[in-house]
Amino acid sequence: MALTQARTMPGVLELLPLDQIAFQRMLDVIRRNYQRFGFLPVETPVIEYADVLLTKTGGETERQVYFVQSTGALEQGEKPELALRFDLTVPLARYVAEHEHDLSFPFRRYQMQRVYRGERAQRGRFREFYQCDIDVIGKDSLSVRYDAELPAVIYSVFCELNIGAFTIQLNNRKLMRGYFESLGVTDPEQQTLVLREVDKLDKRGADYVRDTLTGAAFGLSADAAQKILDFVQVRSTSLQDAIAKLDALGAGPEVMEQGRAELKEVLGLIHDFGVPETHYALNLSIARGLDYYTGTVYETTLNDHPQIGSICSGGRYENLAGQYTKSHLPGVGISIGLTRLYWQLRDAGLVNTAHSTVDVLVTQMDPAQLPAYLAVAGELRAAGIATEVVLESGKLGKQFKYADRAGIRFVIVLGEDELAKGVVTVKDLRREDQFEVSRAELVKTLRVELEQAAVMG
Amino acid sequence: MALTQARTMPGVLELLPLDQIAFQRMLDVIRRNYQRFGFLPVETPVIEYADVLLTKTGGETERQVYFVQSTGALEQGEKPELALRFDLTVPLARYVAEHEHDLSFPFRRYQMQRVYRGERAQRGRFREFYQCDIDVIGKDSLSVRYDAELPAVIYSVFCELNIGAFTIQLNNRKLMRGYFESLGVTDPEQQTLVLREVDKLDKRGADYVRDTLTGAAFGLSADAAQKILDFVQVRSTSLQDAIAKLDALGAGPEVMEQGRAELKEVLGLIHDFGVPETHYALNLSIARGLDYYTGTVYETTLNDHPQIGSICSGGRYENLAGQYTKSHLPGVGISIGLTRLYWQLRDAGLVNTAHSTVDVLVTQMDPAQLPAYLAVAGELRAAGIATEVVLESGKLGKQFKYADRAGIRFVIVLGEDELAKGVVTVKDLRREDQFEVSRAELVKTLRVELEQAAVMG
Repeated sequence: MALTQARTMPGVLELLPLDQIAFQRMLDVIRRNYQRFGFLPVETPVIEYADVLLTKTGGETERQVYFVQSTGALEQGEKPELALRFDLTVPLARYVAEHEHDLSFPFRRYQMQRVYRGERAQRGRFREFYQCDIDVIGKDSLSVRYDAELPAVIYSVFCELNIGAFTIQLNNRKLMRGYFESLGVTDPEQQTLVLREVDKLDKRGADYVRDTLTGAAFGLSADAAQKILDFVQVRSTSLQDAIAKLDALGAGPEVMEQGRAELKEVLGLIHDFGVPETHYALNLSIARGLDYYTGTVYETTLNDHPQIGSICSGGRYENLAGQYTKSHLPGVGISIGLTRLYWQLRDAGLVNTAHSTVDVLVTQMDPAQLPAYLAVAGELRAAGIATEVVLESGKLGKQFKYADRAGIRFVIVLGEDELAKGVVTVKDLRREDQFEVSRAELVKTLRVELEQAAVMG
Repeated sequence: MALTQARTMPGVLELLPLDQIAFQRMLDVIRRNYQRFGFLPVETPVIEYADVLLTKTGGETERQVYFVQSTGALEQGEKPELALRFDLTVPLARYVAEHEHDLSFPFRRYQMQRVYRGERAQRGRFREFYQCDIDVIGKDSLSVRYDAELPAVIYSVFCELNIGAFTIQLNNRKLMRGYFESLGVTDPEQQTLVLREVDKLDKRGADYVRDTLTGAAFGLSADAAQKILDFVQVRSTSLQDAIAKLDALGAGPEVMEQGRAELKEVLGLIHDFGVPETHYALNLSIARGLDYYTGTVYETTLNDHPQIGSICSGGRYENLAGQYTKSHLPGVGISIGLTRLYWQLRDAGLVNTAHSTVDVLVTQMDPAQLPAYLAVAGELRAAGIATEVVLESGKLGKQFKYADRAGIRFVIVLGEDELAKGVVTVKDLRREDQFEVSRAELVKTLRVELEQAAVMG
């Protein structure tokens, strides 16, 4: 038989086991923190009806959708009825609308699953990736206080992920919209275009952006253009500084005042949630897609790795599921794109290949003693110690080499001498050390070693 | 805007949060046990190249494949290049062949992901379902001892899942093949057909099957037909009984002797692995697809719920990835189809909706005291207690009702009195009880309560 080349499509991240362990640990940390803040798990099918998935979208997103067809439908040349989800927000909207009467509101859910986008094949672009989302959905209304809870969750997650100093950056779309209106930019589409120009600040410089805004396409006054440039460059260094900078913007239309009041309340409450002032700040340049978000918006960046961009983003939206239900369902949510984040962190040397989840390898000196090896392994497993037994006969040196290559730290040798004396020899491959311990003390000793190793990281 | 009906396709199992928690707990138990036995995690992409996925298959499986196309490919009317995986075995073969030089052998991996099959819509048939697989893959060879390890893992998993008494049933394809050969049924296809007839024993009775086997289609002697019927009805009641029944089959051709020797060794070793004799048995009717498996085969059934069928199946195969690599990669594996199992257990009343993962709800009596409520929640979360804070102002009664409906057990009330006295009131909604505890003792008290609850289940 001719061989088929074993390969995967571009844009997927398939990991070797020790990297998968590192990735799984990040998933576990995120899940644990989401749960600790009282969020409930939801999983939805990867395949949805295309008409359900594509009610709202258009343009870029729809162009990136993967359609799905069974063999039968394909043969009949039907138009695909099914598609793969491209995010977790549309499935959440569908879920909440479908199960509305079985849910308690505010509905606090987390969802950590893969999503699919037909991206162009390109370094750092993923066609399959994990999103780790939390959202709080209200029925009819949802207090702006929930907007302050999400940064507390983000803070808790990224502290425990231990990937360096980070800052949660906040803005409010009402504030931004109101401020732009006060400068005469009232049309939402025009506001989007202005923001798009402003986004070029870093690359093209202030003069270029100012020229564009005062040019024919926008026709803003020099004063208005400057005010916009000043506005989007506002950053705060402390809670007090944030409040002062918000006040310094001066009076504006009602929507701006609303946004300012919300932002002040949220900033203050984040502090009450226990997030240190060093870890969150005002950043009035954040917009995050002008259509969807309506109030608070968030981005989170690593202080020492700004090139990675936002590692956790989200915001407040007015109505989650208007395309499926007449119920008014406002919400606030954030998302961590874990596949891309992991890939970037690894690229930057901030996460390493993990040690094995296997704690102990029980070697096989003498096949006739297998029952004794299995008994030791059984004791270790009963104590929660992940243990592998060598079942293949072979040279001891080869077994050590296997453990070393597989990243297993402790190797147990149980030869004739040890069996006679009622002890086992434990080799610590990481410390390149070995010791003898009585059978009765083995579990206790290894537990202590493993707990120490866990604390040391 | 006209509303789109929020709905999912038939054949997917979408759960409400408290059911999702129950499902997640089963996933966690399985993963913990797989890890404890030294298996390493692997995840592969849901989408694979269709030519990679479909090298070996044909017939029913290929007819059930879901093909995937991006919008661009669809518009160009191309034949789909991509498809969704229909099991985890083909992706494992592809993975091992692709990463062969980066893996240590024997390669022990677990994989718990969803797979997709375009099944006919029918009660109990799933188009998307979790498989939880473990496999041990050898390079060139793999000791039959590993065939005894998998039942030990199964035993450990199903004990902890706590879904009732179960029996791991074993057979060996060489034994079966050799025995059939000794009766003159030498052609593998003919053997398959005989097995298909024998499968009708329960439904049609022994006379019907005997008549068919001695009829024109098979032309077996009455003696041979009876021997086949007797063979497939062999079950054992203990290890000793199993060995005796294997010996009683009488001498046979070499392949039968090989199978018998393997089965005896495996049965004995399962015992050494610590699996009680009550939990495994010989069952010479098990065949599990005549093409794929070549040695040991397993099925596991719940003693009190035979109608559920096998809850965990697998076996030994000669060569995992012959379609991708010239390396010879024998292996042994098992699979738990968790979605179907969960659905059946729920149907049979063996798993219930879980309590919430949220341990505590901190109520809001007075919005002005929100910082105090947040401080309490922060302490609880720091101690690992999953805590939700009511951020929406509203009547206390409504807040209790929310906790009750959401399945949250403990509710904390922190009113003016409590704040003045430095205490909190804890309502235990499950025990319909309440008590006062000092702030300093709160975390400790709740921890003890929650640990007790965890032990009581």
